Amino acid sequence: MQKYLSQEVSRLVDERLMSELGFSIDQLMELAGLSVAESITKEFPPCKVLVVCGPGNNGGDGLVAARHLKHFGYLPTVFYPKSTTNQLYLRLITQCNTLTIPVINSTPFYTEFDLIVDGIFGFSFKGDIRAPFDGIIRDIKNSQKPLVSIDIPSGWDVEQGNVTGFGLEPQMLISLTAAKQCAQFFKGIHYIGGRFVPPSLAQEFNFEVPPYSGSNQSIKIS
Amino acid sequence: MQKYLSQEVSRLVDERLMSELGFSIDQLMELAGLSVAESITKEFPPCKVLVVCGPGNNGGDGLVAARHLKHFGYLPTVFYPKSTTNQLYLRLITQCNTLTIPVINSTPFYTEFDLIVDGIFGFSFKGDIRAPFDGIIRDIKNSQKPLVSIDIPSGWDVEQGNVTGFGLEPQMLISLTAAKQCAQFFKGIHYIGGRFVPPSLAQEFNFEVPPYSGSNQSIKIS
Repeated sequence: MQKYLSQEVSRLVDERLMSELGFSIDQLMELAGLSVAESITKEFPPCKVLVVCGPGNNGGDGLVAARHLKHFGYLPTVFYPKSTTNQLYLRLITQCNTLTIPVINSTPFYTEFDLIVDGIFGFSFKGDIRAPFDGIIRDIKNSQKPLVSIDIPSGWDVEQGNVTGFGLEPQMLISLTAAKQCAQFFKGIHYIGGRFVPPSLAQEFNFEVPPYSGSNQSIKIS
Repeated sequence: MQKYLSQEVSRLVDERLMSELGFSIDQLMELAGLSVAESITKEFPPCKVLVVCGPGNNGGDGLVAARHLKHFGYLPTVFYPKSTTNQLYLRLITQCNTLTIPVINSTPFYTEFDLIVDGIFGFSFKGDIRAPFDGIIRDIKNSQKPLVSIDIPSGWDVEQGNVTGFGLEPQMLISLTAAKQCAQFFKGIHYIGGRFVPPSLAQEFNFEVPPYSGSNQSIKIS
């Protein structure tokens, strides 16, 4: 049984969930983002949170998490630096707007926040970090604020970890669906969220569904 | 402030959520069904559950609840008596199939189950109860099993309650978004679920968002 998924297996699992297994991206993103918000409530009391969202699904998870955090009594601000034409992300931004969550696209004052959530890059990240995200990662590091990464610490190689040394070093990581290979190099607080994996799918790809309890959508594994 | 929504206001709130406010039905149904499953875990230990699903969105909520109940350690069976061509419901059925939840369309042996979940009719119900649901409601009543209704006890007038006397009399009701007018005639265990209502929407339609706590998706109000 593998504890950690490769980038290619992560892609195949995701693809399978959204094809034969009948899930929509709306559903999966909702459950993933909810699990992120829930696990944050277990480690950090309500506070001012900056949720930094990248241009892909990791940023979408961040938008969903920001919305749930607001419902849970936190004061989130979303930093969405790159504009999007993706209808799903635009709808998620509308949902944040309706909850009076500020969604900004210019550099925030990081020092104003108690916690930063990194929703910049997810398991499909490859290659170089392009602007403006290189500068944003540098700013987040410089802020020295408590940091939670969604699925992957941004800037890390999905399999090899923080090989360049340029990646973020979060205090907390929330792996979605299952931990990716880079998570074996992570030493902080580690949760798994996204309680939607059918055991048959986990078996097919030879990974574990963690022992969630009750109706929890996330579980602390270290 | 109204405690109970009329049928027309319920419709308008739902419509608003899925138009200007940017929610997809997949998202709302996922959160609604999850809140149903979560509130059941607070009242009934894992057991054999029959989830009876009607042809509309109430049945869709039931399908989502059945899936989450399975993840939570329950043994659900879905009774889906009327076949559907709705792509969303078909996908939700696929998701149940993948989790090895039996989805049957012929009369179940009600006595085999410890709990029945009524996902037959929701807030848009009007008029007469047509076959096969008239017989199914009779069978559920005859079974005398513990019963949980989603949003509305099926057979009740959404505003006036069980005026014909033919409707179900559940032990537990889970109102979604907000309680409907008929809920004032309900005397059992009452939860509200569906933690996605923006306060501005509640204000506009003059109803309360209940004081959910922590990351809970449901709240017991009586």
